Amino acid sequence: MAGRIEKILLEKGIELPEPGQPLGTYLPAVIASNFLFVSGQGPKHHGKVMFRGKVGSALFVPEAQMAARQCALNVISVAKQALDGDLDRILRLVKLGGFVNSMEDFKEHPQVINGASDLMAEVFGEAGRHARIAVGCSSLPGDISVEVDAVFEIT
Amino acid sequence: MAGRIEKILLEKGIELPEPGQPLGTYLPAVIASNFLFVSGQGPKHHGKVMFRGKVGSALFVPEAQMAARQCALNVISVAKQALDGDLDRILRLVKLGGFVNSMEDFKEHPQVINGASDLMAEVFGEAGRHARIAVGCSSLPGDISVEVDAVFEIT
Amino acid sequence: MAGRIEKILLEKGIELPEPGQPLGTYLPAVIASNFLFVSGQGPKHHGKVMFRGKVGSALFVPEAQMAARQCALNVISVAKQALDGDLDRILRLVKLGGFVNSMEDFKEHPQVINGASDLMAEVFGEAGRHARIAVGCSSLPGDISVEVDAVFEIT
Repeated sequence: MAGRIEKILLEKGIELPEPGQPLGTYLPAVIASNFLFVSGQGPKHHGKVMFRGKVGSALFVPEAQMAARQCALNVISVAKQALDGDLDRILRLVKLGGFVNSMEDFKEHPQVINGASDLMAEVFGEAGRHARIAVGCSSLPGDISVEVDAVFEIT
Repeated sequence: MAGRIEKILLEKGIELPEPGQPLGTYLPAVIASNFLFVSGQGPKHHGKVMFRGKVGSALFVPEAQMAARQCALNVISVAKQALDGDLDRILRLVKLGGFVNSMEDFKEHPQVINGASDLMAEVFGEAGRHARIAVGCSSLPGDISVEVDAVFEIT
Repeated sequence: MAGRIEKILLEKGIELPEPGQPLGTYLPAVIASNFLFVSGQGPKHHGKVMFRGKVGSALFVPEAQMAARQCALNVISVAKQALDGDLDRILRLVKLGGFVNSMEDFKEHPQVINGASDLMAEVFGEAGRHARIAVGCSSLPGDISVEVDAVFEIT
């Protein structure tokens, strides 16, 4: 009895990574009122970081987009865990925060974070379209190339 | 039949820019529950970036304040669009995020982001006073000097 | 008639600093719906900044953790003020934003921000566990080493 979103994931061949453990004394996600707040997620695949280093130096936009997409997959994985496995409780994605580990002269943050935004639209359709920030960070935890956090509206 | 906030804008001679198009696959703003989340806005005037480069190097506090004010005007413009033109649906501004494209030794982020905060108080009065963060970013999309996002409470 | 959280603070010997004044035209905290949004707080003690400079250069993880803890104490102090002195109105801490003033090669943001997260768990117990981001900033207001903002769910 897979749900609607699970069927979409299956149809599109999108495999969610195992939800990772927080790198500190916090929770992967918190539900408050009708919102689900997901902690910043890195480009991990089953616990292993896939993309490290500064975008514009160690890697460039195409790879960084893949990193952002992987962050978004982890956001969905963590959301699923917080919703006891039921992604259909998501009414919509409200906001994504996109943090790019980037050189001082980097300018293409939107293109990078589109890797996350596109994945959300692919999975959730219209309900996956969201408000967003995309900014450059001087450094990120463990030298990950991208970090993405999220706020969902849930039922 | 201009609304209350529209009259204030008119009286103070504040012209809202045209709401810009997102630089990626996301929305300018999203309504969820009784909140309106506005995406990060740059210092654009009718689609053209007015302030680029690092604050503390390419430009300094007085100009960066104007950049922050322009970001805030874009926040209001986007909010108006999301509210079908009715800014009177805003109960209050809840939070501003102020992101300054700045050199490593820059310290005056609050003065810069006051350009946005002051504009909000000017337009919305007491309801325009808000919680805030102000931080320095190693880089911003398209090398804009300031980016501002917002959360409003709406009716 | 000290409340439950006040008793915990007393028992643990945790003294809240005086709530500081905002460094700009904004509010220390705003209540909207059943959420309390606290503005970014620095590592101040009774108005004086205790930790300045870049983490990884001017100071290192152990000191930066103390800075993050001090930011969290200021978050609680400001929250108390906004709740007319009644910290028992806090249902839970929802989210912390952790901003580390850091060198380009810094990687230990989670360890630093744990200084804030641990304090929250110490004071609020299970209700103090939260979602989180931890990112590196090229600079912060007044060269503070850490800035922390927060969203609480309140009654």
